Amino acid sequence: MKVFCTQENFNKAIFNTERITGKQITLPILNNILIETEKGRLKFSATNLEIGVVSIIGVKIEKEGKITVPAKLISNFVNNLPHEGKILLEMKNQTLLLSTGNFKAQIKGLDPQDFPIIPKREDGFLFSIPAQNFKNAIMKILLCISINETRPELTGVNILFSDQKINLAATDSFRLAEEIITISDIADNYKKNLEKNNSIIIPSNTLSEVAKIITPETEKIQVSIEENQIFFLLDDVYVVSRLINGKYPEYKQIIPKTFATRAVFKKEDILRAVKIASAFTNTKAGEIAVKIDAESKKIIITAQSQETGENISQINADTTGPSQNITLNPRFVLDGINPINTSNIAFLVNNNTSPAAIKAVDEKTGKIIENHTYIVMPIKN
Amino acid sequence: MKVFCTQENFNKAIFNTERITGKQITLPILNNILIETEKGRLKFSATNLEIGVVSIIGVKIEKEGKITVPAKLISNFVNNLPHEGKILLEMKNQTLLLSTGNFKAQIKGLDPQDFPIIPKREDGFLFSIPAQNFKNAIMKILLCISINETRPELTGVNILFSDQKINLAATDSFRLAEEIITISDIADNYKKNLEKNNSIIIPSNTLSEVAKIITPETEKIQVSIEENQIFFLLDDVYVVSRLINGKYPEYKQIIPKTFATRAVFKKEDILRAVKIASAFTNTKAGEIAVKIDAESKKIIITAQSQETGENISQINADTTGPSQNITLNPRFVLDGINPINTSNIAFLVNNNTSPAAIKAVDEKTGKIIENHTYIVMPIKN
Repeated sequence: MKVFCTQENFNKAIFNTERITGKQITLPILNNILIETEKGRLKFSATNLEIGVVSIIGVKIEKEGKITVPAKLISNFVNNLPHEGKILLEMKNQTLLLSTGNFKAQIKGLDPQDFPIIPKREDGFLFSIPAQNFKNAIMKILLCISINETRPELTGVNILFSDQKINLAATDSFRLAEEIITISDIADNYKKNLEKNNSIIIPSNTLSEVAKIITPETEKIQVSIEENQIFFLLDDVYVVSRLINGKYPEYKQIIPKTFATRAVFKKEDILRAVKIASAFTNTKAGEIAVKIDAESKKIIITAQSQETGENISQINADTTGPSQNITLNPRFVLDGINPINTSNIAFLVNNNTSPAAIKAVDEKTGKIIENHTYIVMPIKN
Repeated sequence: MKVFCTQENFNKAIFNTERITGKQITLPILNNILIETEKGRLKFSATNLEIGVVSIIGVKIEKEGKITVPAKLISNFVNNLPHEGKILLEMKNQTLLLSTGNFKAQIKGLDPQDFPIIPKREDGFLFSIPAQNFKNAIMKILLCISINETRPELTGVNILFSDQKINLAATDSFRLAEEIITISDIADNYKKNLEKNNSIIIPSNTLSEVAKIITPETEKIQVSIEENQIFFLLDDVYVVSRLINGKYPEYKQIIPKTFATRAVFKKEDILRAVKIASAFTNTKAGEIAVKIDAESKKIIITAQSQETGENISQINADTTGPSQNITLNPRFVLDGINPINTSNIAFLVNNNTSPAAIKAVDEKTGKIIENHTYIVMPIKN
């Protein structure tokens, strides 16, 4: 191998692939990135056997070749270089020689023959997702992923396919987040696939990887699903992941269709009041009492514990419907509020035993934004 | 107690005292802050029995009183309040009632009679230190503190007193940092004290606390030493700490008086080269080879390991004296370079077995700045 490329491209390819390599003692080659020339370009591949990432960059090839090198080491090397100029990559036996300006390195590699094969897509893409919407949606719902491995299906994100839309959902059975995204570039066989199976479960790590690869420049992501795998193409980066087997709970039925009471308030006000109340609950699974007072148009949040004392905070709200009293876990409330980026938030309640909802409110129209739903179960006393 | 104060002052007093309270299960009152009216002002005290901190603020007192309350809880409460307005503090039995705007809290306290007495200064102050210089000096030398408790004297910072100056030093026997600071407001009995004992050892935590209390507005710190204690007064905050018993090593004799070779280079260049080299050393106690090449006016840094490979970086330097080869621990080199805030750095070497020095270089004159010294022991092969 003898290849010239810009440091910028080289850094990008290492950045995209390095993260999923780990400290694999049993299978050391999984700590490595496979670097190979292919069709006039340079291809970087990494996998942890669940997810595979391939990043392709433009280079000037003088001699073809392939090698695998430790991801952390090559990443440390390139991250500390001055961010300019070109890198020359050469291969000598199983060692990669890198040189740029005053810096030279020789990195010992492992035989590329031992590198696992990263599955390739057989058919065309089924549809495209707008990249920035997808990234925002992932960031909002990943907080609700279950970390409890006894129900593996809840450790992933559910995608429900419908005509022009996909619904992403995550729940740990205490709260649930759902995001609806409009898709485009829909292939002819999308509908056929949908009839066969309209629901899949993606490992949360896969989506968090995809979110990290999305840059502010990424416009769309092409998606394909084949057998038990999902494929994402983001410009020159390609991600493949296994899907989680199992049946995702029929969550739609626990989201109330209507709510008796609605309170709209400032995000910063509620954040402050819930954070203060959290300090007064004595355990991680603490509880706060939330009262929507329809008469005074206030939300009154209280917390108390035998050990520490008690506190009470009032915030102004625009309310419709009757007064309500509901007991909630403050951490789950914060997880619902934090990812919302509008300055007003709606809190929707039916009674003290039914799920309550937290939703974003459009700043201009004052209406609830319907493509995002966060549901939290009350604590029953 | 019934007291009004501004949130700003209240926050400052809590900020200064809260940090040294801990999770003391055996002596729960040490988790608390003592709040008491005194001479028309409000006094906040906290101690971990090694260090005591007292912060005094101006308030409007309607009724005198004192109470102790859990530091973390009151800190969580005030930190989340909007940063404006006044707080009303009231006492009811052993509960502190706080109210401000829409926020109210009742915090259960413990009997102030059980709070340990924080020692008071008997005599006047001995001298003053310029606060910002002191903070910079502390930040630079704390990296060299030993974490090994077998030699307790090395877990502290040594102060050597002389006529108009104090020398701060820290070492873990692998490297040493020394800072010289000019003092002022010298009391008549300073010289007498100095003749009795010109060397003390301060716990590193005490100095790190003092550094945190110094704000950009703090101008000077008054210092007093009595028996086995040191007192610092920073405007309205007062810190007292025990000293460490023991004899500090005679470190002056290991700092070479002269160096055969001097190399001056850019801080960013050396940082980059050492960081890259670190990646190629295979253990934490790795080693890098540093060559000062007098002929080519370069510093050549190499690292290698059986497992990973090797690397070589060259940086331009302005050298005087003969070429040198020396082997160093890259982490110790980074600890010496990082805290220096001039863009040029001098590296001073005698031979491959004597201590080497890293010093700051004045940007205008090109001369070495003599009030800071960092010494690192070479690795002998």
